Amino acid sequence: MPNIKLDISYDGADFCGYQIQPRNRTVQGEIEKALKTLFQEDIRTVASGRTDKMVHAYGQVVSFFAVKQIPINNIVDALNTYLPQTIRVLGAEYVSENFNARKDAKKKTYIYKMYMGKESPFNAFRKLRISSDLNVEEMKAAAKLFVGTHDFTAFYCSGSTATTTIRTVFDCRLYESEEWEKTLSLTITANGFLYKMVRLIVGALLQVGEGVYNNEDIIKLLKSEITPKKYAAPPYGLYLLNAEYDE
Amino acid sequence: MPNIKLDISYDGADFCGYQIQPRNRTVQGEIEKALKTLFQEDIRTVASGRTDKMVHAYGQVVSFFAVKQIPINNIVDALNTYLPQTIRVLGAEYVSENFNARKDAKKKTYIYKMYMGKESPFNAFRKLRISSDLNVEEMKAAAKLFVGTHDFTAFYCSGSTATTTIRTVFDCRLYESEEWEKTLSLTITANGFLYKMVRLIVGALLQVGEGVYNNEDIIKLLKSEITPKKYAAPPYGLYLLNAEYDE
Repeated sequence: MPNIKLDISYDGADFCGYQIQPRNRTVQGEIEKALKTLFQEDIRTVASGRTDKMVHAYGQVVSFFAVKQIPINNIVDALNTYLPQTIRVLGAEYVSENFNARKDAKKKTYIYKMYMGKESPFNAFRKLRISSDLNVEEMKAAAKLFVGTHDFTAFYCSGSTATTTIRTVFDCRLYESEEWEKTLSLTITANGFLYKMVRLIVGALLQVGEGVYNNEDIIKLLKSEITPKKYAAPPYGLYLLNAEYDE
Repeated sequence: MPNIKLDISYDGADFCGYQIQPRNRTVQGEIEKALKTLFQEDIRTVASGRTDKMVHAYGQVVSFFAVKQIPINNIVDALNTYLPQTIRVLGAEYVSENFNARKDAKKKTYIYKMYMGKESPFNAFRKLRISSDLNVEEMKAAAKLFVGTHDFTAFYCSGSTATTTIRTVFDCRLYESEEWEKTLSLTITANGFLYKMVRLIVGALLQVGEGVYNNEDIIKLLKSEITPKKYAAPPYGLYLLNAEYDE
């Protein structure tokens, strides 16, 4: 049976999370409804990972099996016609029968966006407003400490079904940019993420910026030597950038 | 009676236009409701200009009289507490009794935002997606033709109460920028705008980009020598940037 991979992007503020629910409007629910309209069959999708309510995606990856054969370009155009404007299919391809968007994801990258300055209605539900008094240089130094293989017990919340709390972070960088206003973004790439892991890392970095934690504390937290003050940054600043697979 | 001027910003996609209506959620309605909560009196506001449904504002100016005296910083903070996240008060000041946000506006500037490339859910209701085949250099040259004092009969729709269709455009520029994707923005400053004037100018520029109009046609349209194909670009790409007043 043909196996299809989709690249999708969505504005998380418009949905009650990724995962399908009986009564609420979810990203998965909207995608499976559009797929049913297109393929005229019930279709179950798997995604590289679920995103929480209010979390966005630039590049979520979804895969599914369908009986009916449809030319690949028609799939993208038709789905974008059926889907709400706040979910867009960026690409589609036929993949091998073995491909599974969740199990085969080797790396995922998230971005967390923050801004300084006056409140903006255009950042509501899209970026976290932070104080301009934060020590950004300390935060940048602290972000680098997350790179490597660590036990992320201090940076996760129960709720996931993960069997281990050990993860490998390949890249973790905090950088400034001038968009409409001064923006501070964290980019983090890992072989997997625990529940609320990115938001708890951002929360810890904000505490570094405020002087509540220093970099030694971050090292101790990564060694589970001190008890974490678990503060999760709000979900609306978080974007799944992409999921990577072996060729 | 104290006269107060507010600078406000809003995401037009969240409201049924600026102007107050009995049953729909409007920007003016939300502001006057918040003002009533704060000042404990019925307050009528005037704005530099109404914006249509789906049109945004970075810097709308509103003025109103209130009996109660409240420290200016408290006004900003309290209103932002009462208002939805998609309307933000950026500043407030006490002004002379003669000041009227509508009548005294000497210049207003609008931005119209377009983008090329893949559809993005984050641009839904915020930027117009345009073809990457447009002749942008021709469009840039055509934009400059709008500068000056002209009869904008070919660039307005009935619906406004304007007594003259003559307006002076001080600046009109189309420019490219690389944001998340290739963005094309029109900035236009004038002493006043007719109903749908900016959207009709953008519509004409898009027709220049497509080769439907050439720059000679724009000159003829500004002299009312040919009949316009009035195409108004959609409202969600339009932002009121600011309104300027004499010191």
